[in-house]
Amino acid sequence: MTHAPENDLPGSAAERDALLGAVHEAATQVRERTPLVQCLTNEVTVNLVANVLLAAGASPAMVATPGEAEELAHVADAVLVNLGTMGADHRASIRSTVAAAEGARTPWVLDPVAVGVLSLRTRLAAEILVHTPAVVRGNASEIRALAGLASAGRGVDARDDVDDALTAALAVAGRTGAVVAVSGETDLVTDGVTVVRLTGGDPLLTLMTGGGCALGGLVAATTAVASPLVAAVTASAWFNAAASDAALVASGPGSFAAAFVDAVHALTTDTLVERAAAGLRVGALTATGARA
Amino acid sequence: MTHAPENDLPGSAAERDALLGAVHEAATQVRERTPLVQCLTNEVTVNLVANVLLAAGASPAMVATPGEAEELAHVADAVLVNLGTMGADHRASIRSTVAAAEGARTPWVLDPVAVGVLSLRTRLAAEILVHTPAVVRGNASEIRALAGLASAGRGVDARDDVDDALTAALAVAGRTGAVVAVSGETDLVTDGVTVVRLTGGDPLLTLMTGGGCALGGLVAATTAVASPLVAAVTASAWFNAAASDAALVASGPGSFAAAFVDAVHALTTDTLVERAAAGLRVGALTATGARA
Amino acid sequence: MTHAPENDLPGSAAERDALLGAVHEAATQVRERTPLVQCLTNEVTVNLVANVLLAAGASPAMVATPGEAEELAHVADAVLVNLGTMGADHRASIRSTVAAAEGARTPWVLDPVAVGVLSLRTRLAAEILVHTPAVVRGNASEIRALAGLASAGRGVDARDDVDDALTAALAVAGRTGAVVAVSGETDLVTDGVTVVRLTGGDPLLTLMTGGGCALGGLVAATTAVASPLVAAVTASAWFNAAASDAALVASGPGSFAAAFVDAVHALTTDTLVERAAAGLRVGALTATGARA
Repeated sequence: MTHAPENDLPGSAAERDALLGAVHEAATQVRERTPLVQCLTNEVTVNLVANVLLAAGASPAMVATPGEAEELAHVADAVLVNLGTMGADHRASIRSTVAAAEGARTPWVLDPVAVGVLSLRTRLAAEILVHTPAVVRGNASEIRALAGLASAGRGVDARDDVDDALTAALAVAGRTGAVVAVSGETDLVTDGVTVVRLTGGDPLLTLMTGGGCALGGLVAATTAVASPLVAAVTASAWFNAAASDAALVASGPGSFAAAFVDAVHALTTDTLVERAAAGLRVGALTATGARA
Repeated sequence: MTHAPENDLPGSAAERDALLGAVHEAATQVRERTPLVQCLTNEVTVNLVANVLLAAGASPAMVATPGEAEELAHVADAVLVNLGTMGADHRASIRSTVAAAEGARTPWVLDPVAVGVLSLRTRLAAEILVHTPAVVRGNASEIRALAGLASAGRGVDARDDVDDALTAALAVAGRTGAVVAVSGETDLVTDGVTVVRLTGGDPLLTLMTGGGCALGGLVAATTAVASPLVAAVTASAWFNAAASDAALVASGPGSFAAAFVDAVHALTTDTLVERAAAGLRVGALTATGARA
Repeated sequence: MTHAPENDLPGSAAERDALLGAVHEAATQVRERTPLVQCLTNEVTVNLVANVLLAAGASPAMVATPGEAEELAHVADAVLVNLGTMGADHRASIRSTVAAAEGARTPWVLDPVAVGVLSLRTRLAAEILVHTPAVVRGNASEIRALAGLASAGRGVDARDDVDDALTAALAVAGRTGAVVAVSGETDLVTDGVTVVRLTGGDPLLTLMTGGGCALGGLVAATTAVASPLVAAVTASAWFNAAASDAALVASGPGSFAAAFVDAVHALTTDTLVERAAAGLRVGALTATGARA
C-alpha cells in the first residue's frame, strides 16, 4: 500500500475547508459544553493532563480506582485510557472501564504509552482494542507496535518516522475501526480512508514529559463533541499552535510547560483554525492505495 | 434555620478584631514552628500540595503507605486526609491513620474530594467522620453531599453556591464537632455557632488543578498551631491573598500555578491580615437561627 | 576516624584537575549518548525527576510495575531507586529490579528518602544495599540512618550537618562498596578513600519538593557514562550550578522549579566545569584517617 496523496488532488480543497470548519465547531463546543473527561492515566504526567484539560475548557476527572472508575464511566462524556502506569488495580480498572464506556457509547481514547517495549502493556493494549476506541493516539513506535510491526523504539521516545507509520496506522484503523493519530514532527490522522497531515508544534515538546499524554487528553475531550476524525485533528492543531506560542515566551523546557498551559487557554478558536489551515493537508486513499 | 447575620451586628467588630489578631498569630506560628504535616492525598495534585506547604513554612510528609502512615501519624503535628485517590491500600491507610491521629490527639483535616459523586468515597467519608476531624474543607457540592443533601455537582467542580451550603455546613459541624470550611467565590467557615465569610481569591484558581487540595493542606498545617476555626480562616485568607497576588503576574493558568506558590511564600503576615480584614465578615447564630 | 584534608595537600591539585576533566567528559557523554534511565521513584516528585532528566539530555522511563520493572532493567543504561513511595507492589518491584540490575551489571543508585524515620523503608534499604549500588545519595540524616547512627531528622528534611555525616558516609561506603553522596549546604562525595566537597546551590532548593530526588536521577543518568565517583560529582556540580542560575531569575519557590529545569538544560558543559572548579575541593583519607 502506498502513501496518501497531497492536497493538490481534485476535491481536496473542499474537503480541507469542510474539515477546518468542523475543527472550528469542535473547539467551540469543548469550551461551551465543558465535557467531563474521565482519565485513567499515569502518575508521571497526571497533573499536566488535568491542567491542559482545564485550560482547554473541559472538566477532567482523574478517577481510576476499581469500583469508582466504572461508576464514573457511565456519566463521563469521554474517557482517556493512557497506559503509562500499569499497576494491577489500574489494569483491572482499565478493562472494566473500557467495557463500561463501550456499553454506554461513551467515546474513549487509547494512548498506548511504551507499547512494544514492555510486554505487559503490549498485551493489555491488544486486549482492550476490541472495545472499539474512538481514537488511538501514539507516536510512530507505539502505533507500529500495535500493528505488530517491528520498531526502533526502546521507550517513550518516538524513534520511527511518522510517514513510515502510515502503513501501521492504516492497519490499526482497519482492524479496530478507530481513528489513528500519530504524533511526530508531522502529525498524521487517519480513519483508514481520509489521511490528514498537520505540521506545527515545537521541539521543546520533546523535552517536556507528558506532552503526548496531554494531547491524548485533549483528543478525548474533543471526542465528546465531534467525530473521532475531527476530534483528533482539532486536538492536534490546538496542541501544535499552543506549543508554538509557548516556545515564543519560554526560556527552556521548564518554563515551556507553564507557557504551554497558558497558550492552550489563550488560543482563540479563530486563531486555532488559522494556524491549523497553515499546516494542514488532506488526502485520501483509493482501494489500491493512493488516490490518483 | 436562617443564614448568619452580617458584621453590622452588636459585638461583631470586637469579634472580628479578635479573629484577625488570632489569624496573625497563627500565620506567624506556622512559619516559626515548621509543623510536620502528614498528607494522605492524591497523585494528581500531591506535588502542588507539598510545594504550597513548603512555601508556607510547614514541613510536608506525603506518607500514605499502610505500615508507615500510622507510624508517622504519631509524630506528625497535623494530618491531611484528601479523598482524591481511592486505591484499596490508600483507603486502609486512611482508616488506620485517622484512628491513630484521634488517639494521639493530632488534629486532622478531611478534604472530601468528589464525595457525593462516587459512592466508594462517599461511604468512606461517612465512616471516618466519626473520628473527630478538626476541620472539614470542601466545595459546596461536597459539603452538601456530606450532609446528605442533593447536589448539582458531578465531579470535583463546585456547582452549588457557598451560601446555599450554610445549612449543610451547620449540619456537618453539628454532627461531627468539626469546623466546616466551604470554598467558593465567597468562602464560609463555621463551627456551628460563629459564621465567618471571606471574599478574595481569583477565578484562575478554578483553572488550576489542586487549588482546593492545597488549601486543605494549608488548613492542616495551621491546625497544628491554632484552633480549628482560626486555622480554617487563616488558611483561607492566606490562600485568597496569594491567589490575588499571583493573578497580577500570571499570563494564564499555567504560569498562575508557579506564581501562586511564589505568593504563598512572599506574603508577609501583616499583609495577610490586612488583606483578610478587607474581605472578612463575622456573624453568629442564635439557638433559633440568625442572631438579632 | 578524622575528617578528610583540604586541597592544599600535596597531589591534590592534579587530582582536582583530573576530576574536573572527568566531569567535563561525563556531562558531555550524558548529552551525546542519551542514557535510558529507569526510575522507580515516588508519586510526589516523579514529574520533576522526569523533566530534569530530559533537560539534562537523558531519556527517563518511570517504570516500576512488577512484571515491567525487571524487564526494563535489562535494557536500561542505569536505574534509580528512590524510596519515597513504599506501596507493596513498589517494594516488590524494587527488590526484583535491583537484583536484575546487579545481574545485568546495570549501575543503580539508591536514594534513601526518609530512611531512619520510617521503619518499613529503613528495613528495605538495609535489605537492598547488598545488591551493590553504584551510588547512595541522601541528606545527612538519611546517610547517618543507613550507617546505623542516631539522627536528628524526623522526615525528609536534612537536619544533620554534612560534615558530621562523613563518618557515616565512610561507613556506608565501606560496607556496600558504593560511592556515597551527601547533599547539604556543602555536598560531600566519597568512595571511602577520596573525599570530594562541593559548594554551590541555593537555599530555594529547600523550598522545592523533589530537589533531592532530581539529583538522584541525575546521578543515575551519569553513572551510565562515568565511574560512580565522577558521576556523583558531575551530577552534584550540575545541580548546584543550575540552582544558582535559577535563583537569579526566580521570584520564589514556584517559579524556581521551572527556572531550575530551564537551567539544567541551558548550562553548557564548559560552564558546568568552570562553576564546579570554583566550589570543589578534593582530599583523601589515609589508613589511619586523614592523609598527611
